[in-house]
Amino acid sequence: MNVSHYPDALARLIQEFTRLPGIGPKTAQRLAFYVLRMEERDVLSLSAALADAKRKIGRCSVCFNLADSQPCRICQDPRRDQSVICVVEEANDLIAMEKARTYNGLYHVLEGALSPLEGVGPETLRLPELVKRVKTGSIKEVILATNPTVEGEATAMYVARLLKPLGVKITRIARGVPVGGDLEYADEVTLARALEGRRDM
Amino acid sequence: MNVSHYPDALARLIQEFTRLPGIGPKTAQRLAFYVLRMEERDVLSLSAALADAKRKIGRCSVCFNLADSQPCRICQDPRRDQSVICVVEEANDLIAMEKARTYNGLYHVLEGALSPLEGVGPETLRLPELVKRVKTGSIKEVILATNPTVEGEATAMYVARLLKPLGVKITRIARGVPVGGDLEYADEVTLARALEGRRDM
Repeated sequence: MNVSHYPDALARLIQEFTRLPGIGPKTAQRLAFYVLRMEERDVLSLSAALADAKRKIGRCSVCFNLADSQPCRICQDPRRDQSVICVVEEANDLIAMEKARTYNGLYHVLEGALSPLEGVGPETLRLPELVKRVKTGSIKEVILATNPTVEGEATAMYVARLLKPLGVKITRIARGVPVGGDLEYADEVTLARALEGRRDM
Repeated sequence: MNVSHYPDALARLIQEFTRLPGIGPKTAQRLAFYVLRMEERDVLSLSAALADAKRKIGRCSVCFNLADSQPCRICQDPRRDQSVICVVEEANDLIAMEKARTYNGLYHVLEGALSPLEGVGPETLRLPELVKRVKTGSIKEVILATNPTVEGEATAMYVARLLKPLGVKITRIARGVPVGGDLEYADEVTLARALEGRRDM
Protein backbone atom coordinates (compact mmCIF):
# COMPACT_ATOMS: atom_id res chain seq x y z
CA MET A 1 0.00 0.00 0.00
CA ASN A 2 1.20 3.47 -0.82
CA VAL A 3 1.11 5.40 2.41
CA SER A 4 3.17 8.38 1.33
CA HIS A 5 0.15 10.65 1.81
CA TYR A 6 0.25 10.13 5.56
CA PRO A 7 2.56 11.65 8.17
CA ASP A 8 5.28 9.08 8.96
CA ALA A 9 4.02 8.04 12.38
CA LEU A 10 0.54 7.48 10.95
CA ALA A 11 1.85 5.52 7.96
CA ARG A 12 3.80 3.31 10.32
CA LEU A 13 0.79 2.67 12.54
CA ILE A 14 -1.33 1.75 9.50
CA GLN A 15 1.31 -0.70 8.33
CA GLU A 16 1.62 -2.22 11.78
CA PHE A 17 -2.16 -2.76 11.92
CA THR A 18 -2.15 -4.56 8.56
CA ARG A 19 0.06 -7.25 10.11
CA LEU A 20 -2.84 -8.40 12.25
CA PRO A 21 -5.07 -11.16 10.84
CA GLY A 22 -8.21 -10.06 8.99
CA ILE A 23 -7.09 -6.43 8.91
CA GLY A 24 -6.60 -5.08 5.40
CA PRO A 25 -5.37 -1.63 4.37
CA LYS A 26 -8.85 -0.02 4.63
CA THR A 27 -9.54 -1.34 8.13
CA ALA A 28 -6.00 -0.47 9.21
CA GLN A 29 -6.54 3.10 8.04
CA ARG A 30 -9.87 3.31 9.87
CA LEU A 31 -8.33 1.95 13.07
CA ALA A 32 -5.36 4.32 12.85
CA PHE A 33 -7.61 7.36 12.39
CA TYR A 34 -9.66 6.17 15.32
CA VAL A 35 -6.54 5.89 17.45
CA LEU A 36 -5.70 9.52 16.69
CA ARG A 37 -9.13 10.53 18.02
CA MET A 38 -8.83 8.41 21.17
CA GLU A 39 -7.73 9.86 24.50
CA GLU A 40 -3.95 9.64 24.85
CA ARG A 41 -4.41 7.73 28.11
CA ASP A 42 -6.44 5.03 26.33
CA VAL A 43 -3.93 4.69 23.50
CA LEU A 44 -1.04 4.29 25.92
CA SER A 45 -3.09 1.72 27.79
CA LEU A 46 -3.61 -0.34 24.61
CA SER A 47 0.06 0.08 23.71
CA ALA A 48 1.14 -1.17 27.14
CA ALA A 49 -1.33 -4.06 27.10
CA LEU A 50 0.22 -5.33 23.88
CA ALA A 51 3.77 -5.27 25.17
CA ASP A 52 2.67 -6.68 28.53
CA ALA A 53 0.70 -9.59 27.13
CA LYS A 54 3.62 -10.63 24.97
CA ARG A 55 6.15 -10.31 27.79
CA LYS A 56 4.17 -11.87 30.62
CA ILE A 57 2.26 -14.70 29.00
CA GLY A 58 3.93 -18.00 28.32
CA ARG A 59 2.91 -21.65 28.38
CA CYS A 60 2.20 -23.57 31.56
CA SER A 61 5.03 -26.06 32.08
CA VAL A 62 2.56 -28.77 33.08
CA CYS A 63 -0.43 -28.50 30.73
CA PHE A 64 0.83 -25.95 28.10
CA ASN A 65 -2.14 -23.67 28.62
CA LEU A 66 -1.39 -19.95 28.19
CA ALA A 67 -0.31 -18.72 31.59
CA ASP A 68 1.17 -15.82 33.51
CA SER A 69 2.17 -18.06 36.39
CA GLN A 70 3.96 -21.42 36.67
CA PRO A 71 2.09 -23.71 36.73
CA CYS A 72 -1.09 -22.09 35.38
CA ARG A 73 -4.11 -21.22 37.53
CA ILE A 74 -5.98 -24.37 36.58
CA CYS A 75 -3.07 -26.70 37.39
CA GLN A 76 -2.63 -24.85 40.71
CA ASP A 77 -6.30 -25.00 41.71
CA PRO A 78 -6.82 -27.62 44.46
CA ARG A 79 -10.60 -27.62 43.87
CA ARG A 80 -10.16 -29.18 40.43
CA ASP A 81 -10.37 -32.92 39.92
CA GLN A 82 -6.73 -34.05 39.67
CA SER A 83 -7.66 -37.44 38.24
CA VAL A 84 -9.02 -36.34 34.84
CA ILE A 85 -7.16 -34.74 31.93
CA CYS A 86 -9.00 -33.19 29.02
CA VAL A 87 -6.78 -33.11 25.92
CA VAL A 88 -7.34 -30.16 23.53
CA GLU A 89 -5.52 -28.90 20.48
CA GLU A 90 -5.07 -25.26 21.40
CA ALA A 91 -5.43 -22.88 24.34
CA ASN A 92 -8.56 -21.31 22.85
CA ASP A 93 -10.24 -24.74 22.82
CA LEU A 94 -9.47 -24.93 26.54
CA ILE A 95 -11.12 -21.55 27.05
CA ALA A 96 -14.21 -22.64 25.07
CA MET A 97 -14.39 -25.67 27.36
CA GLU A 98 -14.05 -23.53 30.49
CA LYS A 99 -16.82 -21.23 29.29
CA ALA A 100 -19.15 -24.24 29.12
CA ARG A 101 -18.69 -24.55 32.94
CA THR A 102 -19.25 -28.31 32.91
CA TYR A 103 -15.73 -29.63 33.23
CA ASN A 104 -13.78 -29.45 36.47
CA GLY A 105 -10.66 -31.51 35.79
CA LEU A 106 -7.23 -30.70 34.39
CA TYR A 107 -6.18 -30.04 30.80
CA HIS A 108 -3.42 -30.86 28.39
CA VAL A 109 -2.89 -28.56 25.41
CA LEU A 110 -1.23 -30.38 22.50
CA GLU A 111 -0.33 -27.11 20.73
CA GLY A 112 -1.59 -28.47 17.43
CA ALA A 113 -3.07 -31.48 15.69
CA LEU A 114 -1.68 -34.16 13.41
CA SER A 115 -1.81 -33.17 9.76
CA PRO A 116 0.15 -35.52 7.51
CA LEU A 117 -0.78 -33.45 4.45
CA GLU A 118 0.87 -30.39 5.95
CA GLY A 119 3.75 -32.40 7.35
CA VAL A 120 2.67 -31.99 10.98
CA GLY A 121 3.66 -35.24 12.68
CA PRO A 122 3.34 -36.39 16.32
CA GLU A 123 6.81 -35.05 17.19
CA THR A 124 5.45 -31.46 17.01
CA LEU A 125 2.79 -32.11 19.67
CA ARG A 126 3.12 -32.12 23.47
CA LEU A 127 2.78 -35.93 23.58
CA PRO A 128 5.80 -37.00 25.65
CA GLU A 129 4.63 -34.58 28.36
CA LEU A 130 1.12 -36.09 28.27
CA VAL A 131 2.45 -39.65 28.53
CA LYS A 132 4.60 -38.59 31.47
CA ARG A 133 1.59 -37.06 33.28
CA VAL A 134 -0.50 -40.20 32.74
CA LYS A 135 2.36 -42.43 33.89
CA THR A 136 2.40 -40.80 37.34
CA GLY A 137 -0.61 -43.03 38.02
CA SER A 138 -2.95 -40.48 39.58
CA ILE A 139 -4.85 -40.00 36.32
CA LYS A 140 -7.98 -42.16 35.95
CA GLU A 141 -9.46 -40.76 32.73
CA VAL A 142 -8.22 -38.92 29.66
CA ILE A 143 -10.95 -37.13 27.67
CA LEU A 144 -9.98 -36.49 24.06
CA ALA A 145 -11.50 -33.13 23.11
CA THR A 146 -9.61 -32.45 19.89
CA ASN A 147 -11.71 -30.79 17.18
CA PRO A 148 -14.27 -32.83 15.19
CA THR A 149 -12.20 -32.35 12.01
CA VAL A 150 -10.10 -34.79 9.99
CA GLU A 151 -6.98 -33.59 11.83
CA GLY A 152 -8.65 -33.62 15.24
CA GLU A 153 -10.05 -37.15 14.75
CA ALA A 154 -6.66 -38.44 13.55
CA THR A 155 -5.02 -36.85 16.57
CA ALA A 156 -7.57 -38.36 18.96
CA MET A 157 -6.99 -41.82 17.45
CA TYR A 158 -3.23 -41.42 17.71
CA VAL A 159 -3.36 -40.26 21.33
CA ALA A 160 -5.78 -43.08 22.25
CA ARG A 161 -3.40 -45.68 20.84
CA LEU A 162 -0.45 -44.05 22.59
CA LEU A 163 -2.13 -44.08 26.02
CA LYS A 164 -3.93 -47.44 25.79
CA PRO A 165 -0.93 -49.47 27.08
CA LEU A 166 -0.87 -47.30 30.22
CA GLY A 167 -4.21 -48.74 31.34
CA VAL A 168 -5.99 -45.40 31.69
CA LYS A 169 -9.64 -44.89 30.70
CA ILE A 170 -9.80 -42.97 27.41
CA THR A 171 -12.96 -41.21 26.17
CA ARG A 172 -13.83 -39.01 23.22
CA ILE A 173 -16.32 -36.10 23.43
CA ALA A 174 -19.63 -36.75 21.65
CA ARG A 175 -20.13 -35.56 18.11
CA GLY A 176 -23.72 -34.84 17.09
CA VAL A 177 -26.17 -32.17 16.07
CA PRO A 178 -25.34 -28.86 17.77
CA VAL A 179 -27.87 -27.61 20.32
CA GLY A 180 -30.09 -24.94 18.77
CA GLY A 181 -29.27 -26.20 15.29
CA ASP A 182 -31.67 -27.62 12.75
CA LEU A 183 -31.49 -31.20 11.43
CA GLU A 184 -32.18 -29.85 7.96
CA TYR A 185 -28.88 -27.98 7.97
CA ALA A 186 -26.74 -30.64 9.62
CA ASP A 187 -24.35 -32.41 7.24
CA GLU A 188 -24.58 -36.17 6.73
CA VAL A 189 -21.45 -37.00 8.71
CA THR A 190 -22.72 -35.09 11.73
CA LEU A 191 -26.12 -36.79 11.47
CA ALA A 192 -24.49 -40.20 11.18
CA ARG A 193 -22.43 -39.46 14.30
CA ALA A 194 -25.52 -38.21 16.13
CA LEU A 195 -27.31 -41.49 15.35
CA GLU A 196 -24.34 -43.62 16.37
CA GLY A 197 -24.08 -41.71 19.63
CA ARG A 198 -27.77 -41.98 20.51
CA ARG A 199 -28.66 -42.70 24.13
CA ASP A 200 -31.65 -44.14 25.97
CA MET A 201 -34.08 -41.65 27.47
CA MET B 1 -17.54 -10.11 28.59
CA ASN B 2 -16.41 -12.58 31.18
CA VAL B 3 -12.67 -12.90 30.73
CA SER B 4 -11.85 -14.65 33.97
CA HIS B 5 -10.73 -17.72 32.01
CA TYR B 6 -7.72 -15.83 30.66
CA PRO B 7 -4.46 -14.89 32.34
CA ASP B 8 -4.72 -11.23 33.48
CA ALA B 9 -2.44 -9.75 30.85
CA LEU B 10 -4.37 -11.55 28.10
CA ALA B 11 -7.76 -10.51 29.51
CA ARG B 12 -6.57 -6.92 29.56
CA LEU B 13 -5.33 -7.05 25.97
CA ILE B 14 -8.65 -8.50 24.81
CA GLN B 15 -10.55 -5.74 26.58
CA GLU B 16 -8.28 -3.08 25.12
CA PHE B 17 -8.87 -4.46 21.61
CA THR B 18 -12.66 -4.30 22.04
CA ARG B 19 -12.37 -0.51 22.43
CA LEU B 20 -11.44 -0.23 18.77
CA PRO B 21 -14.27 0.31 16.30
CA GLY B 22 -15.71 -2.79 14.62
CA ILE B 23 -13.87 -5.13 16.99
CA GLY B 24 -16.19 -7.28 19.10
CA PRO B 25 -15.23 -9.80 21.78
CA LYS B 26 -14.64 -12.65 19.30
CA THR B 27 -12.36 -10.63 17.04
CA ALA B 28 -10.57 -9.16 20.06
CA GLN B 29 -9.87 -12.67 21.32
CA ARG B 30 -8.62 -13.78 17.91
CA LEU B 31 -6.33 -10.74 17.65
CA ALA B 32 -5.00 -11.24 21.18
CA PHE B 33 -4.17 -14.90 20.54
CA TYR B 34 -2.47 -13.87 17.34
CA VAL B 35 -0.40 -11.30 19.21
CA LEU B 36 0.82 -14.05 21.56
CA ARG B 37 2.04 -16.01 18.54
CA MET B 38 3.76 -13.00 16.93
CA GLU B 39 7.49 -12.34 17.30
CA GLU B 40 8.14 -10.19 20.38
CA ARG B 41 9.95 -7.68 18.15
CA ASP B 42 6.85 -7.22 16.00
CA VAL B 43 4.54 -6.80 18.98
CA LEU B 44 6.79 -4.15 20.53
CA SER B 45 6.89 -2.42 17.16
CA LEU B 46 3.08 -2.26 17.01
CA SER B 47 2.96 -1.13 20.64
CA ALA B 48 5.45 1.68 19.94
CA ALA B 49 3.68 2.71 16.73
CA LEU B 50 0.46 3.25 18.67
CA ALA B 51 2.05 5.43 21.33
CA ASP B 52 4.12 7.27 18.72
CA ALA B 53 1.25 8.05 16.40
CA LYS B 54 -0.78 9.50 19.24
CA ARG B 55 2.13 11.56 20.58
CA LYS B 56 3.58 12.88 17.33
CA ILE B 57 0.58 13.55 15.14
CA GLY B 58 -1.42 16.72 15.53
CA ARG B 59 -3.28 19.10 13.24
CA CYS B 60 -1.56 21.45 10.78
CA SER B 61 -2.01 24.99 12.13
CA VAL B 62 -2.77 26.27 8.61
CA CYS B 63 -5.02 23.67 6.95
CA PHE B 64 -5.87 21.33 9.89
CA ASN B 65 -4.66 18.26 8.03
CA LEU B 66 -3.13 15.55 10.25
CA ALA B 67 0.54 16.42 10.50
CA ASP B 68 3.78 15.58 12.24
CA SER B 69 5.31 18.93 11.24
CA GLN B 70 4.11 22.55 11.40
CA PRO B 71 2.79 23.45 8.91
CA CYS B 72 2.06 20.09 7.24
CA ARG B 73 3.97 18.72 4.26
CA ILE B 74 1.37 19.90 1.77
CA CYS B 75 1.28 23.47 3.09
CA GLN B 76 5.10 23.50 3.06
CA ASP B 77 5.44 22.18 -0.49
CA PRO B 78 6.46 25.02 -2.86
CA ARG B 79 5.50 22.94 -5.92
CA ARG B 80 1.83 23.06 -4.97
CA ASP B 81 -0.48 25.71 -6.40
CA GLN B 82 -0.82 28.27 -3.61
CA SER B 83 -3.84 29.94 -5.22
CA VAL B 84 -6.39 27.11 -4.82
CA ILE B 85 -7.87 25.68 -1.64
CA CYS B 86 -9.85 22.45 -1.65
CA VAL B 87 -12.21 22.31 1.35
CA VAL B 88 -12.88 18.85 2.80
CA GLU B 89 -14.65 17.60 5.91
CA GLU B 90 -12.01 15.32 7.36
CA ALA B 91 -8.35 14.38 6.95
CA ASN B 92 -9.23 11.06 5.36
CA ASP B 93 -11.15 12.90 2.63
CA LEU B 94 -7.96 14.82 1.94
CA ILE B 95 -6.07 11.56 1.64
CA ALA B 96 -8.68 10.15 -0.75
CA MET B 97 -8.21 13.29 -2.84
CA GLU B 98 -4.42 12.96 -2.78
CA LYS B 99 -4.66 9.34 -3.88
CA ALA B 100 -6.58 10.47 -6.98
CA ARG B 101 -3.38 12.37 -7.99
CA THR B 102 -5.32 15.04 -9.89
CA TYR B 103 -5.25 17.94 -7.49
CA ASN B 104 -2.16 20.00 -6.84
CA GLY B 105 -3.38 22.89 -4.73
CA LEU B 106 -3.76 23.43 -1.00
CA TYR B 107 -6.42 22.07 1.37
CA HIS B 108 -8.56 23.16 4.27
CA VAL B 109 -9.93 20.51 6.61
CA LEU B 110 -13.13 21.66 8.33
CA GLU B 111 -12.92 18.87 10.94
CA GLY B 112 -16.59 18.07 10.46
CA ALA B 113 -19.77 19.02 8.63
CA LEU B 114 -22.90 20.93 9.58
CA SER B 115 -25.54 18.72 11.10
CA PRO B 116 -28.40 20.66 12.66
CA LEU B 117 -30.12 17.44 13.70
CA GLU B 118 -27.10 16.43 15.78
CA GLY B 119 -26.56 19.97 16.99
CA VAL B 120 -23.37 20.48 14.99
CA GLY B 121 -23.38 24.15 14.03
CA PRO B 122 -20.86 26.26 12.07
CA GLU B 123 -19.02 27.27 15.27
CA THR B 124 -17.56 23.74 15.52
CA LEU B 125 -15.92 23.93 12.07
CA ARG B 126 -12.63 25.52 11.07
CA LEU B 127 -14.44 28.35 9.29
CA PRO B 128 -12.84 31.50 10.80
CA GLU B 129 -9.46 30.05 9.78
CA LEU B 130 -10.70 29.46 6.22
CA VAL B 131 -12.08 32.99 5.92
CA LYS B 132 -8.75 34.34 7.17
CA ARG B 133 -6.82 32.34 4.57
CA VAL B 134 -9.07 33.53 1.75
CA LYS B 135 -8.82 37.13 2.96
CA THR B 136 -5.05 37.18 2.45
CA GLY B 137 -5.94 37.72 -1.21
CA SER B 138 -3.61 35.14 -2.77
CA ILE B 139 -6.42 32.58 -3.12
CA LYS B 140 -8.19 32.58 -6.51
CA GLU B 141 -10.44 29.55 -6.17
CA VAL B 142 -12.03 27.56 -3.37
CA ILE B 143 -13.19 24.06 -4.36
CA LEU B 144 -15.86 22.66 -2.05
CA ALA B 145 -15.21 18.94 -1.76
CA THR B 146 -17.41 18.12 1.21
CA ASN B 147 -19.19 14.78 0.97
CA PRO B 148 -22.22 14.33 -1.33
CA THR B 149 -24.47 13.79 1.72
CA VAL B 150 -27.14 15.97 3.28
CA GLU B 151 -24.60 17.28 5.79
CA GLY B 152 -21.89 17.76 3.18
CA GLU B 153 -24.21 19.64 0.82
CA ALA B 154 -25.47 21.86 3.63
CA THR B 155 -21.88 22.57 4.63
CA ALA B 156 -20.89 23.40 1.04
CA MET B 157 -23.82 25.80 0.75
CA TYR B 158 -22.94 27.46 4.04
CA VAL B 159 -19.27 27.86 3.13
CA ALA B 160 -20.15 29.19 -0.32
CA ARG B 161 -22.37 31.89 1.20
CA LEU B 162 -19.71 32.74 3.77
CA LEU B 163 -16.97 33.22 1.16
CA LYS B 164 -19.03 34.85 -1.60
CA PRO B 165 -18.58 38.42 -0.23
CA LEU B 166 -14.79 37.96 -0.41
CA GLY B 167 -14.95 37.88 -4.21
CA VAL B 168 -13.20 34.51 -4.61
CA LYS B 169 -14.26 31.92 -7.22
CA ILE B 170 -16.15 29.10 -5.51
CA THR B 171 -16.75 25.69 -7.12
CA ARG B 172 -18.29 22.40 -6.03
CA ILE B 173 -16.98 18.99 -7.14
CA ALA B 174 -19.25 17.19 -9.63
CA ARG B 175 -21.76 14.66 -8.43
CA GLY B 176 -22.76 11.97 -10.89
CA VAL B 177 -22.58 8.28 -11.65
CA PRO B 178 -19.38 6.76 -10.25
CA VAL B 179 -16.86 5.49 -12.81
CA GLY B 180 -17.11 1.72 -13.17
CA GLY B 181 -20.65 1.79 -11.77
CA ASP B 182 -23.82 0.75 -13.53
CA LEU B 183 -26.71 3.13 -14.29
CA GLU B 184 -29.11 0.44 -13.19
CA TYR B 185 -27.78 0.60 -9.67
CA ALA B 186 -27.43 4.35 -9.37
CA ASP B 187 -30.07 6.00 -7.19
CA GLU B 188 -32.40 8.64 -8.63
CA VAL B 189 -30.74 11.59 -6.93
CA THR B 190 -27.34 10.60 -8.30
CA LEU B 191 -28.80 10.15 -11.79
CA ALA B 192 -30.55 13.51 -11.58
CA ARG B 193 -27.25 15.14 -10.56
CA ALA B 194 -25.43 13.33 -13.37
CA LEU B 195 -27.94 14.69 -15.91
CA GLU B 196 -27.78 18.23 -14.52
CA GLY B 197 -24.00 18.13 -14.64
CA ARG B 198 -23.77 16.81 -18.22
CA ARG B 199 -21.14 18.33 -20.50
CA ASP B 200 -20.62 18.65 -24.27
CA MET B 201 -18.40 16.10 -25.88
